[in-house]
Amino acid sequence: MRIEKKQIESHNDKYAKSHAKSFEFISGVLTDEGVNVKKIIKELVDYQVAIPSWALSTGSTRFGRFPGKGEPVTFEEKLDDIGLLHAINKSSGAVSMHIPWDIPKDAKKVKKQADELDIKFDAVNSNTFQDQPNQKESYKFGSLCHTDKSVRKQAIEHNIEVIEIGKIVGSKSLTVWLADGSGFPGQQHFAKAFDRTLDSLKDIYKHLPDDWMIFTEHKPFEPAFYSTVVQDWGSSLLLAQKLGKKAACLVDLGHHLPNANIEQIVSRLIHENKLGGFHFNDSKYSDDDLTVGSLRPYQLFLIFNELVDGAGKELSKTDWGWMIDAAHNIKDPLEDLLQSVEAIKIAYTQAMIVDRKALEKAQDANDTVRAQEILQHAYRTDIRPLLAEARLQAGGGLKPIELYREADCRKILSKERQ
Amino acid sequence: MRIEKKQIESHNDKYAKSHAKSFEFISGVLTDEGVNVKKIIKELVDYQVAIPSWALSTGSTRFGRFPGKGEPVTFEEKLDDIGLLHAINKSSGAVSMHIPWDIPKDAKKVKKQADELDIKFDAVNSNTFQDQPNQKESYKFGSLCHTDKSVRKQAIEHNIEVIEIGKIVGSKSLTVWLADGSGFPGQQHFAKAFDRTLDSLKDIYKHLPDDWMIFTEHKPFEPAFYSTVVQDWGSSLLLAQKLGKKAACLVDLGHHLPNANIEQIVSRLIHENKLGGFHFNDSKYSDDDLTVGSLRPYQLFLIFNELVDGAGKELSKTDWGWMIDAAHNIKDPLEDLLQSVEAIKIAYTQAMIVDRKALEKAQDANDTVRAQEILQHAYRTDIRPLLAEARLQAGGGLKPIELYREADCRKILSKERQ
Amino acid sequence: MRIEKKQIESHNDKYAKSHAKSFEFISGVLTDEGVNVKKIIKELVDYQVAIPSWALSTGSTRFGRFPGKGEPVTFEEKLDDIGLLHAINKSSGAVSMHIPWDIPKDAKKVKKQADELDIKFDAVNSNTFQDQPNQKESYKFGSLCHTDKSVRKQAIEHNIEVIEIGKIVGSKSLTVWLADGSGFPGQQHFAKAFDRTLDSLKDIYKHLPDDWMIFTEHKPFEPAFYSTVVQDWGSSLLLAQKLGKKAACLVDLGHHLPNANIEQIVSRLIHENKLGGFHFNDSKYSDDDLTVGSLRPYQLFLIFNELVDGAGKELSKTDWGWMIDAAHNIKDPLEDLLQSVEAIKIAYTQAMIVDRKALEKAQDANDTVRAQEILQHAYRTDIRPLLAEARLQAGGGLKPIELYREADCRKILSKERQ
Amino acid sequence: MRIEKKQIESHNDKYAKSHAKSFEFISGVLTDEGVNVKKIIKELVDYQVAIPSWALSTGSTRFGRFPGKGEPVTFEEKLDDIGLLHAINKSSGAVSMHIPWDIPKDAKKVKKQADELDIKFDAVNSNTFQDQPNQKESYKFGSLCHTDKSVRKQAIEHNIEVIEIGKIVGSKSLTVWLADGSGFPGQQHFAKAFDRTLDSLKDIYKHLPDDWMIFTEHKPFEPAFYSTVVQDWGSSLLLAQKLGKKAACLVDLGHHLPNANIEQIVSRLIHENKLGGFHFNDSKYSDDDLTVGSLRPYQLFLIFNELVDGAGKELSKTDWGWMIDAAHNIKDPLEDLLQSVEAIKIAYTQAMIVDRKALEKAQDANDTVRAQEILQHAYRTDIRPLLAEARLQAGGGLKPIELYREADCRKILSKERQ
Repeated sequence: MRIEKKQIESHNDKYAKSHAKSFEFISGVLTDEGVNVKKIIKELVDYQVAIPSWALSTGSTRFGRFPGKGEPVTFEEKLDDIGLLHAINKSSGAVSMHIPWDIPKDAKKVKKQADELDIKFDAVNSNTFQDQPNQKESYKFGSLCHTDKSVRKQAIEHNIEVIEIGKIVGSKSLTVWLADGSGFPGQQHFAKAFDRTLDSLKDIYKHLPDDWMIFTEHKPFEPAFYSTVVQDWGSSLLLAQKLGKKAACLVDLGHHLPNANIEQIVSRLIHENKLGGFHFNDSKYSDDDLTVGSLRPYQLFLIFNELVDGAGKELSKTDWGWMIDAAHNIKDPLEDLLQSVEAIKIAYTQAMIVDRKALEKAQDANDTVRAQEILQHAYRTDIRPLLAEARLQAGGGLKPIELYREADCRKILSKERQ
Repeated sequence: MRIEKKQIESHNDKYAKSHAKSFEFISGVLTDEGVNVKKIIKELVDYQVAIPSWALSTGSTRFGRFPGKGEPVTFEEKLDDIGLLHAINKSSGAVSMHIPWDIPKDAKKVKKQADELDIKFDAVNSNTFQDQPNQKESYKFGSLCHTDKSVRKQAIEHNIEVIEIGKIVGSKSLTVWLADGSGFPGQQHFAKAFDRTLDSLKDIYKHLPDDWMIFTEHKPFEPAFYSTVVQDWGSSLLLAQKLGKKAACLVDLGHHLPNANIEQIVSRLIHENKLGGFHFNDSKYSDDDLTVGSLRPYQLFLIFNELVDGAGKELSKTDWGWMIDAAHNIKDPLEDLLQSVEAIKIAYTQAMIVDRKALEKAQDANDTVRAQEILQHAYRTDIRPLLAEARLQAGGGLKPIELYREADCRKILSKERQ
Repeated sequence: MRIEKKQIESHNDKYAKSHAKSFEFISGVLTDEGVNVKKIIKELVDYQVAIPSWALSTGSTRFGRFPGKGEPVTFEEKLDDIGLLHAINKSSGAVSMHIPWDIPKDAKKVKKQADELDIKFDAVNSNTFQDQPNQKESYKFGSLCHTDKSVRKQAIEHNIEVIEIGKIVGSKSLTVWLADGSGFPGQQHFAKAFDRTLDSLKDIYKHLPDDWMIFTEHKPFEPAFYSTVVQDWGSSLLLAQKLGKKAACLVDLGHHLPNANIEQIVSRLIHENKLGGFHFNDSKYSDDDLTVGSLRPYQLFLIFNELVDGAGKELSKTDWGWMIDAAHNIKDPLEDLLQSVEAIKIAYTQAMIVDRKALEKAQDANDTVRAQEILQHAYRTDIRPLLAEARLQAGGGLKPIELYREADCRKILSKERQ
Repeated sequence: MRIEKKQIESHNDKYAKSHAKSFEFISGVLTDEGVNVKKIIKELVDYQVAIPSWALSTGSTRFGRFPGKGEPVTFEEKLDDIGLLHAINKSSGAVSMHIPWDIPKDAKKVKKQADELDIKFDAVNSNTFQDQPNQKESYKFGSLCHTDKSVRKQAIEHNIEVIEIGKIVGSKSLTVWLADGSGFPGQQHFAKAFDRTLDSLKDIYKHLPDDWMIFTEHKPFEPAFYSTVVQDWGSSLLLAQKLGKKAACLVDLGHHLPNANIEQIVSRLIHENKLGGFHFNDSKYSDDDLTVGSLRPYQLFLIFNELVDGAGKELSKTDWGWMIDAAHNIKDPLEDLLQSVEAIKIAYTQAMIVDRKALEKAQDANDTVRAQEILQHAYRTDIRPLLAEARLQAGGGLKPIELYREADCRKILSKERQ
């Protein structure tokens, strides 16, 4: 299904008045505080968050899956769903393909479809954490780190194939998330496993086009429950350092030990010029893959605070990657994604209105109270009307979730995909 | 020092216009949403947070202490500091005494001072986690749980003495936080230590006046680093159940294992009619005792969401206790407390504007997305002008931190207390 | 396949001499320390650990499954595998059935098979965490806690059906592990969900035979990632208290927040006479379901130390339940189970040789150093020859893993089940 | 006090027979397994663990301190205590001085005293986490990272002074543990604080003699409760990389987030040739500073397993540093240290008897079960008689704690130091 321009306009008309009032109020307040509201609106229009191709369906835990209705099966259907999202919020104009789940049969056709939907191709993702039917070697005991050369070779070749597919659709980066690790002490020789992984990555790196990036992604556990090869940003950075300029580190918010200070890790990676991008989600316990901002919205703000500070320019103009990586076990995936994108942009906007000069002054003076006041003032300010205004200007809906429900999207999708 | 009415008025005049504009805007929005703004303002005027007597000075870690200037030494000076806070924010009208640190020499005089400052006497706190000079028995290996009867007796008698002091000043509750526990496996017999603690508490309970409450407080570790006698709400509840009607559980936000769902624990205690009250603070790692709301403001909101739901009436009308329990290692303690009280009242106000009927409907329908939208809408709404208005009406300052700094409070205190 | 007596004897012959030497040495040492070695050997022969029917196959994570060879499909095959284990280690003489996975077609035949293999029927387990094909209502949003009465009814009836099946085979307990909970703040009303769960359990309890027990099992998260209805031992205990005498709490070692002191929880449950039994496994991060004793063997010992102390008699003579609940993602499930049972019995034996009188004396004197010396002396003593001797006397193999491999069990199973 | 040779001999005579029996048994078993027992004994004689000068007194938490009797006050007395330890266990032949607590008045005399006691001078430690009386600048807001140049200068000069003192006594390394960090979001600019720290360290590095090492030490929190400048091994490694060859990373076992895989971090640091050494202790919750091996003995073994593997030679022949860093809040510090040293040497010995060839084979074959069997076999073997034998050969006592108590050491110390 595609949502009609008319539907959006009618939706917006309904909320036009109250939006105008709110927007006028907050614009006035922010302008008085020295914030350039127009510039922020522009950036909010430009800044896009990629949707992974696997995120359009209900996710699962190891205990089972409770599927929803009208879920896309083919990659074309997945693209359509992202198109629907993007039509509604004008902020989801990119897709991150996952190979081998999304090998397009007709690349040209898929490109055309994406163009029509105003969707770009973000990072391509390889998969060496599952065995595919008819696969020669098994990844049960690792892929790029495997003790057996033929398994490593298979995994390397898979990654090279993913690059080739990415080239066709116009991707510019490869994300390598490794499930490689061990389940028990003694199973794996830490140092050798690291060296084999590095060697494998070097082989992949050789095939990386000059204008591409390769992202390594750390995770402390799951599905390996004793050790992982890329367990934290330290190991990820070592790999990226040893690989070269085209390698950088990807941060998944759920891939950290309890209480980790993620915003500081982000700062360190920027400092070393090795931040690659993000896999956004939220979590309370481990890699829960919940809706972005649903549990720790202040942490999300603090991360964006580092990004805005570290980038020194609009985030849409950096080469960092932005992707949602959440599971939608008990929510309609499309509604979940609308909430996630909204939460990301709220945090980003709050970070943009931080009075950075005053903050710097407070930091230099060790005025801890003032520094907190400055950050929390930005965080407590209700800047949602700016997001709404940006959507309005871009042709999206004032209230994404409402629009999606008013337009009966899930029902229509269910009918179309029976 | 005492802050003059004139100073407050002059401060308020400065921000009157911008406050009026913000308050008018948010009042309009909330009224349109069906919120009774007047009622909320009234409750914000009524709701008071107690300040512990030990919180007016710079805190310390085991690695040292970096004292500030103008810190109070006598209990009278501490009372004065709370009076100053209360004059500024009109929300700190209670003190929680800590014995033996605050044994007033002249109880009448102290009562009179408190009356003048509009300060009530909240829970009294016993201390059996330190040895006092000339104390006969040592608490090195526990107090109420000790294997030696004479140590338990000393600790029981101390608590009874604390009750007596509390009676004089008009307190109505005794908070028992126990450092009792063990440092190594084997050191303590878990069951026997629990039984001895219960027996000791029963002895104290006998001396508790009929209109008093006794609060047990759980904590998983520190200063005991292997086990504590009251390690979690489960053990605290067992004690409160076995003691009787006048016993309830006190929740310190920093006294939980990583990732604990504190708001659910609060709900359980309310469900069993055994919630006693709170020790508010915030933390990232363990019992960090940071400014309330400085790290996990959304969690604080979720806790108040349970309180508002579970109380079914204004929190100021419940018999639950509200106290800040934070260390002020690197902030001016008074500024820190102003920030903490503000954060508490923000969370409370956000919880008050939650559309509870709509939430109930969403819950009944398992509409997870809607339920989240409802909570986060309340949380994202900038209700700070309501707090400011309540302060204005109560005679406090529009911007507490600014007022405190404009009035040069710390400098004056430093001079006065040289 | 069944292992032949001859094979076992031939295996034992091989290691007889070195075993005799080791056994003689440690028996001498222990006897000198006042330990009754014969009594321990007898208890080691008697003490049996149940194997859950689902544990004979390769487990999976949400990221995938890497199946092994020769895995059992029918319940009869699963029983055979347990029979094989039991023949080897003489300590796995019980099975815990999981319904609906293991509904036996011919109960009589199954009973006969179990009798032949010397296997008893331990607790039966219900499953309301997955939707079965053709199931009327979905458990997507809970089972016993569901807002919809018809879902609760279905879940209650399933549990009653499980009891009926258990009666036929001779089980005496029902384990209810609930996945019920919520994924996001606001989704579920904590108190109402708890009350609905309690009411549902009461309905099940009514159908429980007089000589049965019902076990509630707590877990802080997964598959629900924000809250669970039975999140910790506190909530589990409340349910067991409110249900009555036939209800008790089951402890799964992996179902706790980071750093929880599980041995103390065990002590508390014994203290309240509400310990039901165990789901044994080990973990480093969350509910990793690893081989028992593979990560935290000292914690396992400390738990058994509480059990021995709290039971006051041989554990085989208590009514507590003992079950392994681990996933075997990357190990041969049968080898994994052999390792788990061994680790349990090692910990139990170490706990049996603790000098309890000396420990009590040290505890009474707060002699922390001595208390640690006593526990660690027991833990550091190599008591494995006692386990071997018990196996020898019971007709099992001296070295279970070696015997399993020498007998080529997996290869034979693979052939048989092609 | 000094313990007499005669006392030790008389103690050893008492246990000679039972020791001989145990030693003979385990030597036989290990020899049969291909272990070179003599070589292990020799290494156990050579391998020494340094005692920090601050560890001879009762430690404290922020809640208080319960001092013991007969505690040393002067550095000379502390040295004497270490001498006593070393006479008993022959494994504590080094001291790690802490400046400014231990500035020796007469360096020559101190050196002579140390020589007599057979004690070497290990790393010297600077202290910029506390303000000393009459100190010009305060470290309240950091030292090497401070925003104010004059504070950094003072901290740098202090470290240089520490080096000078170290030179006099013959130390060869400087340990820099920084409390630097921040208590609240916004307080500190992460990147600038890191850069300032690095610059300060570079200044110190310039003054480091060619045959010295400088150790950076990471810690995630405490006393800074939001962020620390050297929060994990990643940041520590970056500093060591940027400083140069003479810089390496020191690992304190208590300085990690919950569930961190410390043995893997050790492997990574060895891999990058940047392991500096250890601060040994144990913990259950955070930086609890408990007796080594009292909570997680298996983790300790796994760490030594990495060390033995990574070193490729006896640990006494590496340039890695070994120091205990525990607090002794409720134990006699000397007994606590005897237990810690024992636990370290037990873990080391267990690691030495691991069948590394078999392990490598199992790893290459992904035989997880076998790999675990190999490690756990070594861990479960009771190798304590080897430690006793090494002590016997070196002139120490068979049972250190017993000897210490038999000789009434604490009582004598108390009398001497009244």
